[in-house]
Amino acid sequence: MAGASLGDLATRFGLTLRGDPEVVVRSVATLQGATEGTLSFLANKKYQRHLATTAASAVVVDDASAADSPVAVLIARNPYAAYARIAAVLHPAPTAAPGVHPTVVIDPTAQVAASATIGPYVVIEAGCQVGERAVIGAGTYLGPGCVVGDDTRLAPRVTCYAGVRIGSRGLIHAGVVLGADGFGLAQDRGEWVKVPQVGAVCIGDDVEIGANTTIDRGAIDDTTIGNDVKLDNQIQIGHNVRIGDHTAIAGCVGVAGSTTIGSRCMIGGAVGIAGHLEIADGVVVTGLTLVSRSLTAPGVYSSATPAMDAGDWRRVVARLRHIDELFDRVRSLEGAGSKTVPE
Amino acid sequence: MAGASLGDLATRFGLTLRGDPEVVVRSVATLQGATEGTLSFLANKKYQRHLATTAASAVVVDDASAADSPVAVLIARNPYAAYARIAAVLHPAPTAAPGVHPTVVIDPTAQVAASATIGPYVVIEAGCQVGERAVIGAGTYLGPGCVVGDDTRLAPRVTCYAGVRIGSRGLIHAGVVLGADGFGLAQDRGEWVKVPQVGAVCIGDDVEIGANTTIDRGAIDDTTIGNDVKLDNQIQIGHNVRIGDHTAIAGCVGVAGSTTIGSRCMIGGAVGIAGHLEIADGVVVTGLTLVSRSLTAPGVYSSATPAMDAGDWRRVVARLRHIDELFDRVRSLEGAGSKTVPE
Amino acid sequence: MAGASLGDLATRFGLTLRGDPEVVVRSVATLQGATEGTLSFLANKKYQRHLATTAASAVVVDDASAADSPVAVLIARNPYAAYARIAAVLHPAPTAAPGVHPTVVIDPTAQVAASATIGPYVVIEAGCQVGERAVIGAGTYLGPGCVVGDDTRLAPRVTCYAGVRIGSRGLIHAGVVLGADGFGLAQDRGEWVKVPQVGAVCIGDDVEIGANTTIDRGAIDDTTIGNDVKLDNQIQIGHNVRIGDHTAIAGCVGVAGSTTIGSRCMIGGAVGIAGHLEIADGVVVTGLTLVSRSLTAPGVYSSATPAMDAGDWRRVVARLRHIDELFDRVRSLEGAGSKTVPE
Repeated sequence: MAGASLGDLATRFGLTLRGDPEVVVRSVATLQGATEGTLSFLANKKYQRHLATTAASAVVVDDASAADSPVAVLIARNPYAAYARIAAVLHPAPTAAPGVHPTVVIDPTAQVAASATIGPYVVIEAGCQVGERAVIGAGTYLGPGCVVGDDTRLAPRVTCYAGVRIGSRGLIHAGVVLGADGFGLAQDRGEWVKVPQVGAVCIGDDVEIGANTTIDRGAIDDTTIGNDVKLDNQIQIGHNVRIGDHTAIAGCVGVAGSTTIGSRCMIGGAVGIAGHLEIADGVVVTGLTLVSRSLTAPGVYSSATPAMDAGDWRRVVARLRHIDELFDRVRSLEGAGSKTVPE
Repeated sequence: MAGASLGDLATRFGLTLRGDPEVVVRSVATLQGATEGTLSFLANKKYQRHLATTAASAVVVDDASAADSPVAVLIARNPYAAYARIAAVLHPAPTAAPGVHPTVVIDPTAQVAASATIGPYVVIEAGCQVGERAVIGAGTYLGPGCVVGDDTRLAPRVTCYAGVRIGSRGLIHAGVVLGADGFGLAQDRGEWVKVPQVGAVCIGDDVEIGANTTIDRGAIDDTTIGNDVKLDNQIQIGHNVRIGDHTAIAGCVGVAGSTTIGSRCMIGGAVGIAGHLEIADGVVVTGLTLVSRSLTAPGVYSSATPAMDAGDWRRVVARLRHIDELFDRVRSLEGAGSKTVPE
Repeated sequence: MAGASLGDLATRFGLTLRGDPEVVVRSVATLQGATEGTLSFLANKKYQRHLATTAASAVVVDDASAADSPVAVLIARNPYAAYARIAAVLHPAPTAAPGVHPTVVIDPTAQVAASATIGPYVVIEAGCQVGERAVIGAGTYLGPGCVVGDDTRLAPRVTCYAGVRIGSRGLIHAGVVLGADGFGLAQDRGEWVKVPQVGAVCIGDDVEIGANTTIDRGAIDDTTIGNDVKLDNQIQIGHNVRIGDHTAIAGCVGVAGSTTIGSRCMIGGAVGIAGHLEIADGVVVTGLTLVSRSLTAPGVYSSATPAMDAGDWRRVVARLRHIDELFDRVRSLEGAGSKTVPE
């Protein structure tokens, strides 16, 4: 395992060290689980109580918490980001030996960089381009004309339909399906006529897509995911959706077709976003919310009710169904009141 | 790319042409993105404003909009369906060369039509039948006794457990799992006893199933999907569910076990339907709704609340929790009121 | 197909037989669909009406219903569990011939028991251990250092990232992804810094995981699933989640990172559970509920509203948005009332 001295880490990431620069850390740990030779961090006040008793060799903290640490500290303006960067040094992604596994089925017109790694049972169709140092995991399928950028990694069992383009430094997890047909159907005399989905999927640089997430190809124009977009697992992105740079979406979200989501949005888990909407830059939506109208201003939006005792909730629902008449009754009382309180 | 003259298209699909029948269109485009040689359409009033400035060579419209088009028009009773049919002519699905890829692992008892196309690394177990012109994508698995009808296409990485039957002209997208065990569990003294799932999955003709959708096998009888049913991505269909002909279900919907959904229903995205229910023909359910009772009459049903400002919503929820006592207070006022307003 | 006499079944499972012990049953059936030679059961009062007309050769019932059966009965304290155990005798899982398919790509340092069955196109990386009688389905991927316990079955197309450990007698369905990176991101000056996910996934004994379910690896410590946990399809389990023994979770549930769920919980379909929460042992959550706070006591919890007519619901929502002012109006009336009803 890689190791690094605290002095080196402080220099490399521009952190202030209080402690012995010669001390070496070899892996990361939680404050509670830390042992000698590990580095931990404090970024969430909820875990502050574990700082005093940590057995880590060093802790990444902000200035305010530094004095409370019983061990060496690396002081950072943004401890979580500094921890993330150090963890990437201590736990580097395993390097893959370049080369194409002998079982790969590859069309002669496909171009694969010599520095790329193509795992067993991968299928690469005509006209594909795979960039420098890209990694394609076992059993992944690249349809005709797909492009995988430099340093992008596809996990095992990813499926890219024809014409999917992925930028550089991406990370696409197992089970992801990019470019399946959008849900385009015309109704005619009670039967469905399939609307051909002739657009593609275009994904920017530095995008991570979680396991079993699906992004449909555009009906005519492309479905477009911006740079530095982060999608969690089991998200469904409909055809023609556009997602702006730096937006992050948590697991189980569904975005219906032709909706545009701005930049730097944060969408909570299991949110449902209807089709043909515009979501402004900087919008935050909390978990399980239904977005059925455009959100034209940045802000935080919600609509889910938190759990309560089931019996109490049943009474609330029963009453809620009659809220309309309750308004009427109150209006009626107000009218009566105005009669009983003469001027 | 295929091309077609407007005259030919008008004749073939029974449309009225206003314009030069010799003009050839080669691909489809949006009204805004259209260039010479493309065909566009207007089916959603929302895009009406783009008609006047379109650079398409022709537009499919209804009679009412025809006069507003600056270019040739193909006039249709149902412009979206007419567009869909024309788009299928201009953008035909790529034809697959018949044959079995040398890497396919196929049981000698399986029957595969000579006109079918079986991609690399497909596994076909004993007793399977694959129909004429069927296409089985790379890495797809057909368990023992599966049946794939004529002209049905399975994308790469589909999994069919034993005994799954799919009709003709179907389209099954990547990551779909058909026939996994239903969630059948008997509780006994605090532990779970698995209930064997011995039914299968039976899918009609002209069915499309979206990426990463799952349909469980029946516990005893089969899980059954009717003809012309359209399922979007990431839908979960529990064991013993029955779905009637021409029903369409949007993405991320879950249908629990033993529920029957009628014909020509439309179920919105992320709807949850509880188990052992009956949903009548022609029911429409809007997105994120919870269906926990049978819906015995056609109609439109809803239960989700649209997003609002998070702070305002928190106040609504806080109040909602006390709605029961608000009813009591109003009743009390009404009682008091009857005292203050004599005779 | 296996068959068993009623006498043998009664003896083997400790049931009381009323009927001919020599009668043989060969398969299971529903009460309505049963024919001679089949065994049925009655465990849900909803189906009681079908008992009197069943053509099954025998029915598993409780003591109270035994007298209503027109055919032989096997009387059980818990008819559903007894049925489940008998069904497993009549419909045994197909036995797989031990051995490694010649197409398997396996690292020389991996250890696979001679009694295990490894299907076509499986990839097994360095340091993996596959236990006695384990079955690994076609196209499944085991990353470096994975452990699969004795008698555990992985369906086709399962993906296990590095270091995933699965106990004995497990059943992992197709499309499952275990050990993909958790959604760990630090925000820094508007961009995302990936937080390395260095924990693994540890799954106990007797665990079933439904199709296309995803369980992320821990950020530092492992994501942990207890013994006898049952997960339905399309569930998303975030990093560092811990689930206690005997808990069952229905389809489409999302559990965000670092949440702990106790033992013997039952979580309904499409429930969303936020991150960093504690859910006590024995908690039951009904479908589509949002759990956004810890639930520290056993009980049943809900928050979803059942479907109603869409027009009525729109009125309810419109009123609900003004519930705050309704409270104010009622308070105002109460104030006025106190003035108009003098002591």
